[in-house]
Amino acid sequence: MVESLTISNSTKLLLIVLDGLGGLPVVEGKTELELAKKPNLDQLAKRSALGMHIPVDYGITPGSGPGHLGIFGYDPIKYQIGRGILEALGLGMEVKDTDIAVRGNYATVERKDGRILVKDRRAGRIPTEENRRITRKLAENIGEIDGVKVFIEAGMEHRTAIVFRFPHPLPPDSHLINDTDPQKEGKEPLEPRGLNASSEEVARVVRLFLKKVEEILADEPVANYMLLRGFAQKPKMEDFYQRFKLRACAVAVYPMYRGLASLVGMDTLPVAGSTLQDQIETLRSVWDRYDFFFLHIKKTDSYGEDGNHWGKVKVIEEFDAHLPQILELKPDVLVITGDHSTPSLLRGHSWHPVPVLLHSPYVLGNTAESFTERECLRGELGIFPAVKLINLMLAHSLRLAKYGA
Amino acid sequence: MVESLTISNSTKLLLIVLDGLGGLPVVEGKTELELAKKPNLDQLAKRSALGMHIPVDYGITPGSGPGHLGIFGYDPIKYQIGRGILEALGLGMEVKDTDIAVRGNYATVERKDGRILVKDRRAGRIPTEENRRITRKLAENIGEIDGVKVFIEAGMEHRTAIVFRFPHPLPPDSHLINDTDPQKEGKEPLEPRGLNASSEEVARVVRLFLKKVEEILADEPVANYMLLRGFAQKPKMEDFYQRFKLRACAVAVYPMYRGLASLVGMDTLPVAGSTLQDQIETLRSVWDRYDFFFLHIKKTDSYGEDGNHWGKVKVIEEFDAHLPQILELKPDVLVITGDHSTPSLLRGHSWHPVPVLLHSPYVLGNTAESFTERECLRGELGIFPAVKLINLMLAHSLRLAKYGA
Repeated sequence: MVESLTISNSTKLLLIVLDGLGGLPVVEGKTELELAKKPNLDQLAKRSALGMHIPVDYGITPGSGPGHLGIFGYDPIKYQIGRGILEALGLGMEVKDTDIAVRGNYATVERKDGRILVKDRRAGRIPTEENRRITRKLAENIGEIDGVKVFIEAGMEHRTAIVFRFPHPLPPDSHLINDTDPQKEGKEPLEPRGLNASSEEVARVVRLFLKKVEEILADEPVANYMLLRGFAQKPKMEDFYQRFKLRACAVAVYPMYRGLASLVGMDTLPVAGSTLQDQIETLRSVWDRYDFFFLHIKKTDSYGEDGNHWGKVKVIEEFDAHLPQILELKPDVLVITGDHSTPSLLRGHSWHPVPVLLHSPYVLGNTAESFTERECLRGELGIFPAVKLINLMLAHSLRLAKYGA
Repeated sequence: MVESLTISNSTKLLLIVLDGLGGLPVVEGKTELELAKKPNLDQLAKRSALGMHIPVDYGITPGSGPGHLGIFGYDPIKYQIGRGILEALGLGMEVKDTDIAVRGNYATVERKDGRILVKDRRAGRIPTEENRRITRKLAENIGEIDGVKVFIEAGMEHRTAIVFRFPHPLPPDSHLINDTDPQKEGKEPLEPRGLNASSEEVARVVRLFLKKVEEILADEPVANYMLLRGFAQKPKMEDFYQRFKLRACAVAVYPMYRGLASLVGMDTLPVAGSTLQDQIETLRSVWDRYDFFFLHIKKTDSYGEDGNHWGKVKVIEEFDAHLPQILELKPDVLVITGDHSTPSLLRGHSWHPVPVLLHSPYVLGNTAESFTERECLRGELGIFPAVKLINLMLAHSLRLAKYGA
C-alpha cells in the first residue's frame, strides 16, 4: 500500500546498518551495546524514537539476504534469494535477469570401472591461492557455451561461484535443477537435470560446462572436479526507486552487501578504502546526488560470529566516535540498526529482535537513557516487523500522503 | 473470527474518541497530553489498561474515514470510503446502497468557438452564502433525472456534494467514472465516462445532470459551471450489530462522524446543542437503550490542525473536567482514545500511534502515573492495530466466548 502514497521531496534518509548489531549478556549481565562506551549514540538515543525490529518472524534466524531485504522494505518471505545468487554477490559478481548462478566446490574424484567416484567433496580444502590459479585456468578456457556466457570467480579455499548468462531473459523457475553434490564420499556425482522445460535447457548447458571442467582439470592432482550446489535465479523485485521514489545508493565495503543493495536497484558506490572514515568520505561526496543512503558496517557481525564480544564492543565504540561526522551531514531521517542480531554468546546470527534508533524532528523521544537492547524495548516504536522500517523512514521524512479521505 | 464468538449480556461499552488525540513535544519537550492538567484522566489511567493503537499501518497517516473504521473494528484497508461518500457524510447527507456520491466544485467557465474553457476551477472561492443560494437554485430545479433522485448540498466556499439515488441497488464498481475537473485552468472540462457497463449507466445520468446545471447557472456571473471529483459508492460492510451483537449509537456533533457511524449501522442520535455537556445529556438519556456508545469530540483535532497546541490542551482539560459525569454512568468498559494523532507540531493528521486507555474491572493497571503518549507506551495493551480495539472492548465486557475446546 505504501507505494501508492509515496511523494517526493528534498529530504535525505540515512540507514546505517551495523551488521549483527543485537546481542545477549556476556560480561556481568551486560550485552556488547551495554558494555560499549558510546556517549554520542546514547545522547542521540535520548532525542530519538527507539524500538526493536523482528527481521523475518518470531524465532526466525535470518541469513544476510533476508536480513537486508527486510530493512530495505522487501518482504523476505516473499522474495527469496537463492544460495547461488548470494554466493555470486558475495564474490562481487553481477547478476542479471538472464542469469543462473550456482556455487561450485572443487572436489577430488577418482575413476573406477568407467565410473567417477567422489573421494573428497572439498578437495582437501585447497588453499585459496591454489583455488585462484585453477579458477583462472577454467575462466581462460571456458568463455562461452552454446551462446551462454560463463563467469567463474574464486572464493575461499575450495569454493567458487559460477554465473551462466543467457542471451535472453529466463522464465521463473529456470533454476530448478538438482545439486550435483552426492553429499557423501565414495558416491558418484549426480547428473544435473531440470525440473521443467526451461530449467532443463539450463541443465543441458551446465552438463556441457561440467564436461569441459572435467577435461580442463584432468591433470590436476587434487582439485580435479567440481560439485555444484544451489542453482538460483535473481528474484523479480520491483525497483527501490519505483516503489519508494527514493534515489538510493549503498556505501558498503563487502561485496555481498553491495550486491544485495544492487538487487533492489540501489547504486553501489566505490569506496576508496575499507575504513568507516573512507565510507563517510564517500557518503559526503555523494550527499547531494541521492535521497536514500545505505551505510553498511560489517565488523560487528564478524566479531559476533567469532564469539569475540570485546571486538564487537570496540567496533561499536569506533562507530560512536565517528557519529558526530555523520550527524554533520544533517540527515532528515537517520536510522541506526542491524540486519539481525549476532550475539557473541551464540557465535552466529540469531532470531533476537534488533535495536532500532530513528532520529527525526517528529518523534516523542525521551523514553531512554542509552542505545541498548533493553532501553530500545521501552521505546515508542515498539517491537515491529523489519519490513515496516521503510514505512517509518518515509513517514518521518514526510514522504507519504494521507491514506483515505 | 471474533464475530463467531460474540455473546450478549447487559454490559455497557463506551468508546470516547478525542479526534486526533496523539501529539508530539511542543513546549519544553512535552506533548499536549503532558501539558494538560487533567487530574481525573490521570487518576483513571492508574486504574486502567493503557496502550497505543496503530490506526492503519506503520507510518501510514489516516484520513478521518480509515481512522474511524479501524476503531469501529472494520479493516480500513479492506473497506475504503471514497471521497464523494465522505464529502456527502460531512454535509450530513444520507448515503445508501443505491447511491453514487461525488464532490462538486463551482467553477467559472467561458465559451469560445463553441468550446467550454475553465477560467477558474473554484469560481473565485465564492462566499459560502453565495454557494447556498446557487445550490438552492439547483436543488429546486433538479429533483430527478430519468428516475434517479438527485440531492445536492452546499459546503464551504465553492464546495458541494451531490448524491444520485438510483431506484435499484447498484453493483460494485458502479462509481468508476473519471473526474471532470481538468486540473488546469484554460482547459475543457472532461466528459464523465464509465469504465464498465454499470458505471457508464451512472455516467449517462451525470452527463444529463451537468447539462441541466449548465442551463440553470447560465446567467450566473461567477459560478456558472460545476466540476465533479471523486465519484464514490458506499462500501459494502456488515452491520455493526450483526457482527458484534451490540446495539450501538453515536453521540457526535459533526456530520462526518455521525455519517461514519451510520455507515456501519450505528444509530446517530440528535444532540440538543454542540457542547460536551449536551453530548453527555444525550448519552445519559439513551443509556438504557443501547449497549455500545460512540462519543466523538472534534476540537482536539481542529486545534491540532491549526497548530494551536494550547487550544488542544484546553480541550483535553475541558474533557477532563467532564469525566466524572461520564464515569457516573458506570460503563462496564470505557475506552478513551483518538482515531489518529494530530500533532500541532505537524498541523495535520499523522502516522504516530494513538494513546489508548481501557477501563474495566479486568485489567492489570498500575503501569503508569498519567494518561500520556509516553506513559501509554509502558501499558499492558502494548502497541496494537486499531482494528483489534473492538476485540479488547468485547473481551473486557465478557462478551466473547472461549475459542476452541
